[in-house]
Amino acid sequence: MGAGPRELPPFTLTEFERRVERVRALMTEARLDALLVTSEPNMEYLTGFTTQFAWNTPTRPWYFVLPRVSHPCAVIPEVGLSNWRATSWVADVRTWPSPRPENEGLDLLAGALGAVRRRFGRAGAELGPETRLGMPVADLLRVKTMIRPLALVDGSAVLRAARLVKSPAEVARIRRACAAAGRAFDTLPGLVRPGDNEKDVVRAFQAELLRQGVDKTPYTSIGTGCGGYDSIIQGPTNRRLAKGDILLIDTGSRYDGYFCDFDRNVAIGAPPSRSAARVHDLLWRATEAGIDAARPGATAEDVFLAQARVLEDGGMALGNVGRFGHGLGKVLTEPPSNKPGDRTVLSPGTVLTVEPSALFGAGKILVHEENLVVTEGAPELLTPRAPRAMPIAPW
Amino acid sequence: MGAGPRELPPFTLTEFERRVERVRALMTEARLDALLVTSEPNMEYLTGFTTQFAWNTPTRPWYFVLPRVSHPCAVIPEVGLSNWRATSWVADVRTWPSPRPENEGLDLLAGALGAVRRRFGRAGAELGPETRLGMPVADLLRVKTMIRPLALVDGSAVLRAARLVKSPAEVARIRRACAAAGRAFDTLPGLVRPGDNEKDVVRAFQAELLRQGVDKTPYTSIGTGCGGYDSIIQGPTNRRLAKGDILLIDTGSRYDGYFCDFDRNVAIGAPPSRSAARVHDLLWRATEAGIDAARPGATAEDVFLAQARVLEDGGMALGNVGRFGHGLGKVLTEPPSNKPGDRTVLSPGTVLTVEPSALFGAGKILVHEENLVVTEGAPELLTPRAPRAMPIAPW
Repeated sequence: MGAGPRELPPFTLTEFERRVERVRALMTEARLDALLVTSEPNMEYLTGFTTQFAWNTPTRPWYFVLPRVSHPCAVIPEVGLSNWRATSWVADVRTWPSPRPENEGLDLLAGALGAVRRRFGRAGAELGPETRLGMPVADLLRVKTMIRPLALVDGSAVLRAARLVKSPAEVARIRRACAAAGRAFDTLPGLVRPGDNEKDVVRAFQAELLRQGVDKTPYTSIGTGCGGYDSIIQGPTNRRLAKGDILLIDTGSRYDGYFCDFDRNVAIGAPPSRSAARVHDLLWRATEAGIDAARPGATAEDVFLAQARVLEDGGMALGNVGRFGHGLGKVLTEPPSNKPGDRTVLSPGTVLTVEPSALFGAGKILVHEENLVVTEGAPELLTPRAPRAMPIAPW
Repeated sequence: MGAGPRELPPFTLTEFERRVERVRALMTEARLDALLVTSEPNMEYLTGFTTQFAWNTPTRPWYFVLPRVSHPCAVIPEVGLSNWRATSWVADVRTWPSPRPENEGLDLLAGALGAVRRRFGRAGAELGPETRLGMPVADLLRVKTMIRPLALVDGSAVLRAARLVKSPAEVARIRRACAAAGRAFDTLPGLVRPGDNEKDVVRAFQAELLRQGVDKTPYTSIGTGCGGYDSIIQGPTNRRLAKGDILLIDTGSRYDGYFCDFDRNVAIGAPPSRSAARVHDLLWRATEAGIDAARPGATAEDVFLAQARVLEDGGMALGNVGRFGHGLGKVLTEPPSNKPGDRTVLSPGTVLTVEPSALFGAGKILVHEENLVVTEGAPELLTPRAPRAMPIAPW
């Protein structure tokens, strides 16, 4: 290894200043005096703190307090101090000796929140849709009591709105993850061998993703089956691949804290059936339509409708996933959802997956997925475009 | 790939019945009529539901309700139904079309909780120490209101107690993860090459872990530095390795839903300094003492003290990690903590890491780590024991 392209330069201080400025403007609109941040994506987004440790061990919680007007502070376990100093721009760091389950830094955290200058009397935490709190709920409720009369409310909309538009440096990371996974997908037809089961293929494919330069592959689903697969979110299982199968792999791989999320279909040892080939072609065209619809001013719903129209015109039953793509960035799936009723307006910097799926045959489903960034003009495709005809793996 | 040992057989229905029986007995002691489970480890533990999808996308929450006396039910997004049926023994599955952020199955969930036979008037959720709720907190609070007068309280102690003692089938998975990572560590001295930086080494090592049969490597920290490293939980960075470095890699890799967690030290191109070699030897002996102390009836504190004694007798300053090892299983770090004050009593089936660390020189730290399972007699080491003298990588 080591032969891949050089790593991207780290985010600049200016980048973090812009993020904080934007979040603070949104806090004013949302009438919040402070934000309490505990989750991996929001912590990384605002502070730059980079760690595998904090997010793999739930023993010790990690807190970040961003006041609307005064300086921010981190409240973290003592063991993390050098990691924090090495990766974050935030200088005010308060620590406690952890593990200490009876009080994991709650007094320090309440102190930091309590010292915030108050105009609205409200602090926001990550409580709303698509969030996962990064500390025990019982401790959050204790802090809520400790900081009264400062009210603890849902502040997740502020972070959702800020992260919806990616900076060029963020897009560069997603582009890099997409390119690496694209090179790995290029090797896929040659990677599968008679005798392999789904677990073998997924292990080999993950190793190839690393060789191509991703940092980590949290998500790799696989679907295989004679003439087509019946789920797009499962596996790997012990099922052995066979000639005549269609193979789907969908990967969420990370580069420097940002995800790609796309898939590829491969026919094993023989061309796909006429019906599978037709669905594949319709999905390819639906993807084209979805990509083309992702323009500034359009909504996530518009991106769905453009894809659905192609499939419905082709007489297809839409897939049962509940949407045709979604936001993408520090998390594998971020808002918005490309679905009826999601009127989120796209703007330059919005990164989306376009992901049409269709049901066919006896309980089969076929799916395509590409990633793009909305620009002032035509969308920029971040993934190398899938071939219109399904590739065939030698067997 | 595909040349590794065969996969372990799946957990039996009897295994899940035993887990549920044990949890229900603990629920009676804790005066809980039901448990609401939303997190990856507890969901997998009780239901067998195996998915990468649910835990990588926070868009859709997944709920499991275990009543103390009547039959359990899952409340999950429609897209997950076939995944559920393919992997879980739980037959009562209720679905809603998700994403639907305004109501992600909350009425179904409240209905399932509301129908539970009541004796104590309390349902338990994952709110306590070392837990992370697998749904938005705001939604949990809505459900709490919807199910009144049934009270929603912390039920995490029940799951913590049940999971503290591993079954033979669980230990087999941890043993397998340890063995695979052990083989990968054997290759480490030959894996590092002049020109490599920490990111290169971590990517190559992750690929080797996959080749040796782990499913996934969520955690790989790396420390490098001339004569020693200064953090055991950081990296990888762009720092290039050099002759005279000491290299630490610590990995948390998964096999079939269970983790190993151990590390190895390698001297790069030259023997370690006399002081580093001495600390290494002391840590090796402290590890021996910790392993030997892990007997039924001993406490986690005893395992700490046995290690600390060796280091203090050797005149060493204890590491700043806050503990000398911890529980291990479905999560990289589980209770208990090997630290002063943790009086958790060990019993056959408790799986622990033994992880002494010591400070030396100018801001350096050195660490060892092995994994074991407590038995009726001497503890069974699950990791291949590290060599007493630090291996030297050719350079």
